[in-house]
Formats: sequence, structure tokens, C-alpha cells
Amino acid sequence: MGVFASASADEGQWQPHQLPQLKAELKRIGITIPLEKLTDLSKHPMSAIVSTGGCSASFVSGDGLIVTNHHCGHAAIQRNSTPERNYLQNGFLAKDRAGELPGGPSMLVYVTEKVENVTDRVLKGLAPTMSGRERYEEVQGRIKALIAECETGKGYRCSVPAFHRGLEYYRIRQLMIRDVRLVYAPSEKIGNFGGDVDNYEWPRQTGDFAFLRAYVGKDGRPAEPSPDNVPYKSKDFLVVSAEGLKNGDPILLAGYPGRTSRYKMPSEIRFARDADFPVRVAGMQADLAVIAAATMGNPTYDVRYANVVKGINNVMKKTQGLMDGFARKDIAALKDVQDAEFRAWFKQNQGNAPKALMADLDALIAADIALSEEEYAWSVGTHSDLLGSARTLYRLALERQKPDPKRDAGYQERDLSFIKARLTRLEQSLVPVVDEARYSAALQRYSKLAARTRPQSLDALLPAPRDVAALYKSTELADTAKRLAWIGKDADAFRKSDDAFIKLAVRLYEVSSSLENRRKEINGNLEKVIPQYMSAVIAWKKSQGKPVYPDANSTLRVTYGTVSPYSPRDGLVKGPFSTVDGVVEKHTGVDPFIVPKEVIDAVKAKRFGAFKDPVLNTVPVNFLSSADTTGGNSGSAVMNKRGELVGLNFDSTYESITKDWYFDRAITRAIHVDIRYMLWVMKEIDHADNLLKEMTIKYPKK
Amino acid sequence: MGVFASASADEGQWQPHQLPQLKAELKRIGITIPLEKLTDLSKHPMSAIVSTGGCSASFVSGDGLIVTNHHCGHAAIQRNSTPERNYLQNGFLAKDRAGELPGGPSMLVYVTEKVENVTDRVLKGLAPTMSGRERYEEVQGRIKALIAECETGKGYRCSVPAFHRGLEYYRIRQLMIRDVRLVYAPSEKIGNFGGDVDNYEWPRQTGDFAFLRAYVGKDGRPAEPSPDNVPYKSKDFLVVSAEGLKNGDPILLAGYPGRTSRYKMPSEIRFARDADFPVRVAGMQADLAVIAAATMGNPTYDVRYANVVKGINNVMKKTQGLMDGFARKDIAALKDVQDAEFRAWFKQNQGNAPKALMADLDALIAADIALSEEEYAWSVGTHSDLLGSARTLYRLALERQKPDPKRDAGYQERDLSFIKARLTRLEQSLVPVVDEARYSAALQRYSKLAARTRPQSLDALLPAPRDVAALYKSTELADTAKRLAWIGKDADAFRKSDDAFIKLAVRLYEVSSSLENRRKEINGNLEKVIPQYMSAVIAWKKSQGKPVYPDANSTLRVTYGTVSPYSPRDGLVKGPFSTVDGVVEKHTGVDPFIVPKEVIDAVKAKRFGAFKDPVLNTVPVNFLSSADTTGGNSGSAVMNKRGELVGLNFDSTYESITKDWYFDRAITRAIHVDIRYMLWVMKEIDHADNLLKEMTIKYPKK
Repeated sequence: MGVFASASADEGQWQPHQLPQLKAELKRIGITIPLEKLTDLSKHPMSAIVSTGGCSASFVSGDGLIVTNHHCGHAAIQRNSTPERNYLQNGFLAKDRAGELPGGPSMLVYVTEKVENVTDRVLKGLAPTMSGRERYEEVQGRIKALIAECETGKGYRCSVPAFHRGLEYYRIRQLMIRDVRLVYAPSEKIGNFGGDVDNYEWPRQTGDFAFLRAYVGKDGRPAEPSPDNVPYKSKDFLVVSAEGLKNGDPILLAGYPGRTSRYKMPSEIRFARDADFPVRVAGMQADLAVIAAATMGNPTYDVRYANVVKGINNVMKKTQGLMDGFARKDIAALKDVQDAEFRAWFKQNQGNAPKALMADLDALIAADIALSEEEYAWSVGTHSDLLGSARTLYRLALERQKPDPKRDAGYQERDLSFIKARLTRLEQSLVPVVDEARYSAALQRYSKLAARTRPQSLDALLPAPRDVAALYKSTELADTAKRLAWIGKDADAFRKSDDAFIKLAVRLYEVSSSLENRRKEINGNLEKVIPQYMSAVIAWKKSQGKPVYPDANSTLRVTYGTVSPYSPRDGLVKGPFSTVDGVVEKHTGVDPFIVPKEVIDAVKAKRFGAFKDPVLNTVPVNFLSSADTTGGNSGSAVMNKRGELVGLNFDSTYESITKDWYFDRAITRAIHVDIRYMLWVMKEIDHADNLLKEMTIKYPKK
Repeated sequence: MGVFASASADEGQWQPHQLPQLKAELKRIGITIPLEKLTDLSKHPMSAIVSTGGCSASFVSGDGLIVTNHHCGHAAIQRNSTPERNYLQNGFLAKDRAGELPGGPSMLVYVTEKVENVTDRVLKGLAPTMSGRERYEEVQGRIKALIAECETGKGYRCSVPAFHRGLEYYRIRQLMIRDVRLVYAPSEKIGNFGGDVDNYEWPRQTGDFAFLRAYVGKDGRPAEPSPDNVPYKSKDFLVVSAEGLKNGDPILLAGYPGRTSRYKMPSEIRFARDADFPVRVAGMQADLAVIAAATMGNPTYDVRYANVVKGINNVMKKTQGLMDGFARKDIAALKDVQDAEFRAWFKQNQGNAPKALMADLDALIAADIALSEEEYAWSVGTHSDLLGSARTLYRLALERQKPDPKRDAGYQERDLSFIKARLTRLEQSLVPVVDEARYSAALQRYSKLAARTRPQSLDALLPAPRDVAALYKSTELADTAKRLAWIGKDADAFRKSDDAFIKLAVRLYEVSSSLENRRKEINGNLEKVIPQYMSAVIAWKKSQGKPVYPDANSTLRVTYGTVSPYSPRDGLVKGPFSTVDGVVEKHTGVDPFIVPKEVIDAVKAKRFGAFKDPVLNTVPVNFLSSADTTGGNSGSAVMNKRGELVGLNFDSTYESITKDWYFDRAITRAIHVDIRYMLWVMKEIDHADNLLKEMTIKYPKK
């Protein structure tokens, strides 16, 4: 936790209801859409902004047509692809509704329908004498009750996320659409152009977009996937502006950012920078080397671990980016200054806050850091997908001994289908001998971690690295059917099992349970203290006339900024636009830089149609803005001053990675696909005229 | 040879007398100094532009004070440095004239005094029936006579370079000042900041400047170095403008560019791109690997070969840059189009030109390429410094059998001191066991070259790689005194010698002589045909209203352009300025990125004085311009529209390397040191107030 708020212009992932506080600033940059429109989630344009679970998306027609990133629709494209009809490689376009393809069970769309402040119901009458764990469990119990009350049918998913770590709670009710179909995706040569090589990089020329459609039952309510379903009537959808933007234009961006750490204390930054991140990066590097060695020369293994490797690489690049950013700018020192300013102010303006607030907070954060080191050691000591499955299954059996409302979050009846899907999907990314090699190496790493950080008694319970091979010989969990067969068995069946991983999961349960209880104790205490602290921070900021936004928590937020280049270092300027000429320039013919012939021909012939930028004299592909984004904002609508769709967010630059901890206006840039590239690809390359007709597109005046 | 001329704005390394042809263009970009002033070499500002042999420089006071690049003064700084007084590391400033240090025998300054067109005297009455070699030798004889007539004393050096390969000849008379002293050089932490890592790179923050002073005898004429000498009275010197430039401002640049190949034929480009360059780069890489292995772990060896390695790396990066540039842009194809256009025009406008001109030219170029492959094989088969010395010495003995005017250029009496200096200097960059390893590896490479390219009978004359060790055991040439003792011995002494390398040199003489004679034959023919071809090209260009400049040939040229950034690729803009903030940003504390503490402190305290740019709000360090430069332009004066000194040229960007073959205005940029950085370093860091006072500096109005 640390003192941070809208210090710099363009910073902030704002709850829609906060927007009126930013009126002057938004007017200054040129936003003309009335802010009141943005605060009403039931009205256009906010009602058009949806979530896919991990990504953001938006409706672009009244018939449930959704636009999001290509990488957000990847699972749907992949599951419909075969070697004969490779939609990843060649792209896919449904010429009519009948041709739209099922997105599969993991393709969901959430439409936020209602947001209520339920802070009182969560916090009212909590006894100040409660231990951290008691408080934590009481709060969780109330949250579960609030959720149960809200989820009146399978059509809704509700959640009660904390804001400012418990200062406020909002209950969010979302329509959960479970029949989502693939409508159109360009070839990954466009949609994933540059691939992992260009991840977090600029210059960038990726056409990271795809179209889905939400289907519901004939009664208009969410339903299981069925051919009888009909397109969802999305009365509020975004109008598309083919006019695009130019350098300096204002933008609004709406979506579901996942998680930020803007209010971290200097001590937390120093821990991350000096201890946590370096250890994690080293661990990931080692893990990648093990996977590479274990899959080498075996294409099947390669394919199974391709996404695992991609995921690790992504986290590693992000962590490395944070480390590089911290090395470039001493953010801890900057926060020291702000922290000192706040503490000085607080001494004079304590109000009703407890006298020992800051001392309590400092002690709690120290305990939090110490526990997080043990949790990391635990994760290393249990770094096996088969062990993970066994632990999930045993935990589920234990939780199911309790009445549903008492079960821990994630193990209730409402979670069962997700657990089953996850345990099934594992088969796509598991090879037992590779898992064995990874686990054996992880145990080696575990044994080298500082003794202080290794959870008590865990050393003795874990297998020795040399005994790992035996474990894999004595388990059946690698078989999907046998793995799923454990769902529903009682805890006793686990205790009596001969399966090596089930036995290990049972043996490790006490340690994990103890770590979890200590986590609950600390979190319960943090949730008590941090809101008091944040209240003081908000009061302090208010005294300076500055509003405060909460850290991202996967809820709907609005951010703003301007189209702008940046200088990553002296003598160099990046952006704000890339162009189709740059696409052709990057073509090497080798993945991920293969440009389809149709694109090369169209660019060489300058067939730019209505999508040519009058300044650039070519079609813009990606552009940079100063908007404040993070993971989860993938697919977020980028809107012009009038609230019309002009692009999709899909990445940010390498220098921006530290923004999750500290927003530096000078170098923080989000990367967006330009709507003109999307429309050009649809028109010139893929001939998606049916979709161009379905959307409401405003073309620039000649 | 190929059809090329001032196709694009800013292209051209113009002979001063050509400038009036560019009047409209120079006026358009904003040059205000009257062009007539630039055409008169005896008047300001051209009389202030001098050469140091390999670099360009200019007078900046009436007392012979000269400014050039730090790397051009490197030899003078190095020879005065000791471990105790390390002027390279710490910089050097003479607080008064008495403190100025001798630059050494290789530090010369040439002041161009007279340029005469002597084309008639070189070409008049040459019989068209002459063979190529006869013509070549007759022309060389006339040139030598013209030089002898001109060099009326040791104070002058004359030359008769060909322009357009023999269309015109000019006799150039230069005052040769032999007492050149080191006045001031910043630390190499400023003067060579970025070192080899940043060679050809942008962003760049190198303070590549140093000051020398020309001394002459009391009679005002060049004299041997002596404490009795007095500063040369340079009546025309450049006025310095501390106002600097801003983006878009015009510049003039004057200096001595070395060599360009702008008129190459498509076939020559294809040979270079597809055959010659790749073989050369592979050879250099192999040579570097051998040097690295042979010097490893021995700091003395390391030091001896540091400059050799630097030189090879520089050529290799340049060659690689040409290959990359050719890969990026199909220059051969562009030239194909222009060549076809010219040939079509020529068919209609032959005039007096021989009917078979183009067929003759094509055949000659094919022969030239074939011979150049043999010459390259020869250079690989003789790639030993000791063998090189032996060959020079034997050749000198043979040439001295002839009367001086008949000797080949480079072996006349006037060349003797240079030969001696070179043979002496070898000791600084020679370790026999390293030379042995290099030669042995080179012979291995030689044996793998295509048989077609290996000169006839050479295979049998060269030692086998395994016999190389024996050669080095049987030679005394590694001893400087013994090496020099061969100067003056007659050819017979060589033939009777037991020294292994002398014997090898004698044995190889026939082959080298035959290669040379074939070279003379081809060059004689090229010098007959190319001028006819270039006349036609000039006529063709004239018909389009375009002037034509000759390829660079180390003579005084003027080029122009504007301060401008460039886009090396889509989405990225480089320059045009770097700043002192970038210097601090690049500081790692590890060579070549060590920033002196005084610089860091001054930047952090924003002590920018009069040198702060009003737009950048800091001190500019380097800037880019579109001026047309090449090697030899190092140290060239960069002048503003009024002809005042605003910077020094010192490098060009990586993407520009192909400019030696093809000038591409969009990406060709020269890199200059900004005068404001030079003055700021002199004032704030090195306190060179004596020099600031000596120069005439115009400060910006407040």
C-alpha cells in the first residue's frame, strides 16, 4: 500500500460513477459526450461494453455481434480448426448466421446489468475484537450470501469485489451468455502478426481483432448452447467511426482491467524489486529450459506445451519489464517522498483514525511480505500439474462435506462446472514425462530457497527430486476420464487411495491449509486496516482537490487519454501510428512475420479505399494512446470524443509495464488496433461485407 | 559505373566551382551566404577548410587553431599519454601555447591553396591505338611530371586526382604543415562516448571533437617540428555561432570525402552484393576470431591488436550495413531502370561517341570484376603483416633501380618518409605469433576460394598452412631496426637473403607484378572508356536540367542539407537531436558508457548557461542532417546558412551506409556534434576559457 492517485493527467481506471469528478479534465482534452451518459451502465454506450471473463469486448450491432481481440477469441478459433480447415492460419468468416461456429464452453460473455454499493451489508456490525481470520471468514460469508441472493438463475453471475481492499464493496450482476459463436477472425498472419516476438513491443502492426456473436434462448434469456438459440438483442451497441483519429485526439477506453498495484508501499516495491521478482524470473527461466529440453524433438509434446511456454514467457517478459522499469526509475524513492508527505499530513489530520494506524499497517505489510515468501516456496514445492489436479480434487471433496454456503469460494456448487472444465482442459497441455521433469527441477529449486521462506514441516513432506519418477509411475491422474472420476468421491476415498499424487495431496493438505489460514488472518487484518488508511489518503487527496480511483479489480472501468507518441530514450520517438506499409516492410516469410499475399498486393497497389489517413497517406494499423490500461483491458473499446468505436486496445509498450505499479505519463502508452485497419482488412482482404453491412459505420466526409 | 546524379535533393558532393549550378536549390533551403564566396578556395570560408590526410578540419582562429574530431586527433592524444598522465582517459588542455604538445609525425595538416584544371596536359595527344597499360603508364608519367613541377619545396604536397575516372584532372597544391600540436581534447568518456558499440548508431551522444594548432617556421613556411616554430597565421578562419540550429534549418558542410561509388553499373552492384561482400565479411569474421583466440589472456597482445580489431570491425560493420541496405532496397533493380533509360536516350543521342561504347564498357567491367576476384584471392594468400613488410621493402628496392620519375606512384623519393613511418609504426600492432595464426588461417581460407579466382601459379608459390610456423622461425623482420635496415639495400641483397619472408616476397613478385600489369591494362582501358560514357551521362542529365557531381576522391567538396529526423522503419522516428540528458541516461559506469561526474552534476543541476536550446530546454549533443557525406568527412565543418560553424560531422547512421553506392534522401543522415555541446563542455566541464576567448563566437541574443 502506498500513497498514489491521479497525480498525472490521463492516469486512473475510473469507476463509471466517478467520471463527473473528472469533468474539467475530460473537457480540456476534448471529450464531448455528456459524462452522465457514461455513468449509467444500463444505457448506451456503457451497456455495450462487455467482458469475456479474461478480456473486454463490445457489442457492435443490435443482434449481439461482438468485437474483441483475436487473442481473446483464440480458443474459439482453435477449437474449430483442423489440419484441413485451419482457421487460425487461414482465418474464418461465416457468410451467414447459420455458418457461425460454436465457441465452446470456455467462451462466455458477461454483460454488466447492475452495480450496487453493498458496503454496509458487508461491513455492518463487524466486531472490532475479531481476529483477522474470523473477520475474513465473516466477510466472505456475507459476500457469499449476497451472491447467492443475486444469482437467481443460471442466466446470471454475481460478484462482490472489494474496492480499495475493503473500503467499499459493490455487488455486480452480470448476464452470463453461454452460447457464444465465432463469426469472423482474420488469419493469424494478420491477427497475431509479430506473435510473441512483438509482444509488448512497438513498432507494432498487429490486426488483433475478431468477431463473436452472443446467442440466447428464444425467451431472450441465457441458455446452454443449442442450434435453437437466437442472437441476443443488444439494443445498445457502439457506432463505428471509420474516420479514425489523428495525433493528439482524445480517447475514452472502457473495459475490465484485471489487477493493478498503484497503492503499494515503498517497502513492498523494494521487496518486489530486490527479492521477489528476481527469484521468480530465475524460476521461470529454469522452468522454460526444462520444458525445452523435455519436449525437444517431439512435435506432439511441443504443441502441448506451446501455450504453457507462451504464458510463462508473457509473465516473464512482464516481470522483467517491471524490473527494468524499476532500474530505470527509482519508483520506491518517489513513493518514499509521497509516503513521507502523507504521513506528515496524517499526523495533523488524524480525525477518527486509530492512533497506531500507520504502525499497524507497516507491521501487517511486513507480515504479508513474509507470508508471501512462504507461499512462493509452496508454489515451487508443488509445481506439478498432476499434483495440482490431485489437490483440487481432494480439496473439493473436503469442501463438499460442508453445506454449500460455508464452502470456500471457488469450491461451491456454482463453481463445479468451471472446475470440471479446467480438469478436462488439462489434457491439452500435459505430457506426464514433461510434467515429471518440471516437478523434479522445481523440487531442486525449492531445496535451494532460503530456509526462512520454506513453510514449516514442508521439507519432510515433499518427495526428493530423485523420487519424482516413482510418483509418475504410480498415478492414473494423467488419464482424463480417471481424473474426472474423482469428482464426487468422498474424502475417505482419497485417504485410502494408492495413487501417488492423491496420497501426496492428502499428505500436503495440512501445510496448505495452515498457509491458507494464515493468509486469511493477514488478509482479514489488512482488510480492516487498509480501508482506514485509504480513507485517510482519500481525505488527503481531497484536501488537494484530487479524486482517487481504486486499483483495478476486473470490474468495469473507464480511462481516457490522447493519441500520442513517446520517447523511450533520448533521440528516439515512437509512434503514434504504424501503417500497412510497415506490415509489408516487416514481411520475412518466416513466422510470425508472414504477410498474406493479398495484403502485400493491396498495399503495393495502394488500394486503401475509404480507410486512407489523410496525413499518413496510407492505412493506419496500430496507434498509441496515453490511456491507463492493464491486463484484462485486452479487447477494450477505444472510443473517440463522441463515444464512437475507433479501435481496440490489445497491448502496451515495454516501457509501460511498470504502470501497474506507477503510472508515468511520459512513457506509458497503450497499443490499439486502428478501426481503419480492421475495416480495411474486412473489406479488401476478407470481403466480410455482411458484417460491414450489419454494423453502423460512419464514413468520413469526402 | 552506372547512371546516377543529383536525382534527389541534398544529394551530391560538389566541387566548389560547381556550386553556382545549385543556386536555386540552395536558396530554396535557405542558404544566404553568396555562393561566389564558396567557389573561391583562396577566400573565407573555404580557405579555412583543411585536411589532416584522412580527416577534415577547419581553422577557428587567426593563429592556426584547428578543430576536428576527437578520433581524428586520437594519434596525437595517444602518443602523449602515459599511465601517469593519461590524456585519453582524462582529457588534455594546454593552458597556454607553451603547453601545447607535439602531435607526432603522422599528424599533418594540408591547406588547399590552388586547384587547376590540367585535363588537357594529362590527356592531350594520347594515341587511340595505345594498349590499356601503355595508356595507363603514359597518363601516370604525365601526372608525376605535373606533381614534380608543382612540389617546389618540402612545404607543398601536390596531387592530380582524376574526376569521373579520367574525364577531368585537377592539380591540387596543398601547403603541408608538419608541426601540428595538440591543444585540447576532452576525455574519451566525452570524445568517444559510446565507443564501438555506438559506431554508426543513433541515438548518439558523442562529443567527438578536439583542437590542434598548426605551427610553421618563423618565415611563415612549413617546417620540421621545432620549438622555434610559431603558430601558422590562418587569416581566414570560421566564425563560431553558439546559436546552433533547429529542426529544418539548412546546413552547408565542407570537407574532404574519401571515396564513393555512385556511378556503379547494376552488374557491379550485384557482384558486390551477391559475391564480393559476403566473402569479405566471412573472411573478416574468421580473421577476428583468430585474433581473439591468439591474443586471449595476454593484455599486451590485446593492446597491440586493439586498433587492428577496431579497424576490421569498422569495415565489417560498414560492409554488413551495405549488405543489409541492399537487402532492404533493391538498388540494383533501381539502377537497372535508370541504366535502361540512359541507354535508350544514348541510342538517339550518340553524338561523336564510339558506336560500340556501351558494349566496350560492359565487357571492360566484366573483366574488371573478374580481376578484382583474383586480387581479393591474392590479398587472402598474402595476409601477413611480416610478408607485407617484406613485399614493400623488395618492391622499393626494385623501383629504386629506375630513375625517380619512372618509379611507380608510392615508391618515389617523395614517398620514402611515409614508407619508413609505416614500417616503423608496425611495431605498435604486431605480435609474431598472432600474425602467424592469422596467416595460417588466411591460407586455409585461400585454399577454399574458387579455383577460377586464384591467380595462376600462385597456389604452388604459397606456403602450406602447416609450414607457416617455420616461416616465422626463420625471419628477423619482426625486429623494427632489422626491418628498417632493409631500406636502401639493392634487389640482389634480397635475392640472396635467407630470411623466410624476404624469400617469399621475392618468390611472389612475379605474380604480384603480373596482377598489377593486368590492373594497369584494365584501368588504362577504363580510363579511356568511362570518360566517354560519363560525357554522355552528363549530356543526358543536362538535357534534363540536372548537374552532375563526380564521385568523391579525397578532394575538397561542399555538400548541403537540412537538420532532419528520419524514420528507419514504420512507427519509429529517430532524431534530429540528442541531448545531455541522454548522456546521463546512457551512463552505466562501464566503458564505453562512463559519464564523468562533472557532466552528471552539471546536467542534474541544469547548469546549461548560454548553450541551452530554447525548444529542447537542455543542451543538444548530436544532431542529424541530410547532408551527403562519406569517410574522410570526419571532422568536416558543419555551417549554418551564413557559413558560421555550428557543428562537426563525425559519423552517419547505420541505414545510411548504402549511401556510398546510392543516396536515399529518406533515410540517409549524417551525424554531427552540436557546437553548443562542444562549447558547453569547454566552458562547464573543462574550463577551456583560453580557447573560448581565442575563437570568435557569436552568442545568441538574450
